[in-house]
Amino acid sequence: MADYTLHCFKDSGNAYKVALMMTLAGVKWRSVWVDFFKGETRSDAYREELNEMGEVPVLEHNGRKLSQTGVILDYLVEQTGKFAPADRREGLRWVFWDNHKLTSYTATYRFLRNFMKDTDPAVLDFLEGRMRAAFKVLDTHLAGRDFMVGDTLSTADLSICGYLFFEDEFGVVWSDYPNIAQWLGRIRAVPGWQHPYEMLPDGPV
Amino acid sequence: MADYTLHCFKDSGNAYKVALMMTLAGVKWRSVWVDFFKGETRSDAYREELNEMGEVPVLEHNGRKLSQTGVILDYLVEQTGKFAPADRREGLRWVFWDNHKLTSYTATYRFLRNFMKDTDPAVLDFLEGRMRAAFKVLDTHLAGRDFMVGDTLSTADLSICGYLFFEDEFGVVWSDYPNIAQWLGRIRAVPGWQHPYEMLPDGPV
Repeated sequence: MADYTLHCFKDSGNAYKVALMMTLAGVKWRSVWVDFFKGETRSDAYREELNEMGEVPVLEHNGRKLSQTGVILDYLVEQTGKFAPADRREGLRWVFWDNHKLTSYTATYRFLRNFMKDTDPAVLDFLEGRMRAAFKVLDTHLAGRDFMVGDTLSTADLSICGYLFFEDEFGVVWSDYPNIAQWLGRIRAVPGWQHPYEMLPDGPV
Repeated sequence: MADYTLHCFKDSGNAYKVALMMTLAGVKWRSVWVDFFKGETRSDAYREELNEMGEVPVLEHNGRKLSQTGVILDYLVEQTGKFAPADRREGLRWVFWDNHKLTSYTATYRFLRNFMKDTDPAVLDFLEGRMRAAFKVLDTHLAGRDFMVGDTLSTADLSICGYLFFEDEFGVVWSDYPNIAQWLGRIRAVPGWQHPYEMLPDGPV
């Protein structure tokens, strides 16, 4: 019997952040597939029952329905005692930066580039520029560091890496950002790591 | 002697979130003007001394340098005991949503529309669409509520309102979003409230 239920789909890097943390923390979870591409997250039923923000992921646990990935990761630290940043405030700072400056552009660029073929090239150029500016900040921060905050894997890493394993879908070669490349290699080497396409469902399960 | 030093400029709604909270909490603060439009936040000196993310605001207090507005608001709750959301996790959820879905698009749209006159219209249309989708979520949430979380003003309100007093700069008439209109009126009515252009510096002070 799974303790946690994650409403998700395979293309969601935000859902992956949560799935990866639960998997690496060794907790039992099950997935409920959300038919995002048919508009399920934006339906009245989804907004009323799961998340008024109309977004994935939603995590159900002990009767609670949690949304916003940054909140869920913080909740999982409380519940599991694992992956707390060595400095709580510094960890939270990077999770906010991820939401505001990294995932916001990277996820949107990838989505429009791959799944919405009629997107105006000017929009793609704009988003790619913002995404690459964020990669530069990240690559600079990771110089001389193994992980985002302190010496161990934390929610800051788990949040920030969420979309970065889809690199071929946003046309980036990580050798252009060598510190990011090495850091992603460290995360991939953690026992239990899987790519989002291996970890998350692609249809009803 | 001010207790807090805020690195800011008058056009930054993110700096305004912090300035408004400090003002309404009655703490002493002073501003240091940042020459954003000449690239100061993106300079090596700024990144090294104040914020590697290259952003405003930065708040200095007791030798600490804090950045990311969501973190600063949380810090100010700890320091002042004021404006804590009735439900901490629900408050944090809305501050994340603000960063990811509201401010990210609203601030960027306003910036490009007003300050970067050569922006491709397709980019403006894209950002306006995302901004209006966020306004819809916000307006729906505020139906039947006085404030974002619980019955009192909290960091969730202070974060979300940050850019919304610039409405004439992003071409929105709040009567299209009546619950937002009323909620902004409630915030404007709080003793001490000022518009960002009155609260933040427009040059060296």
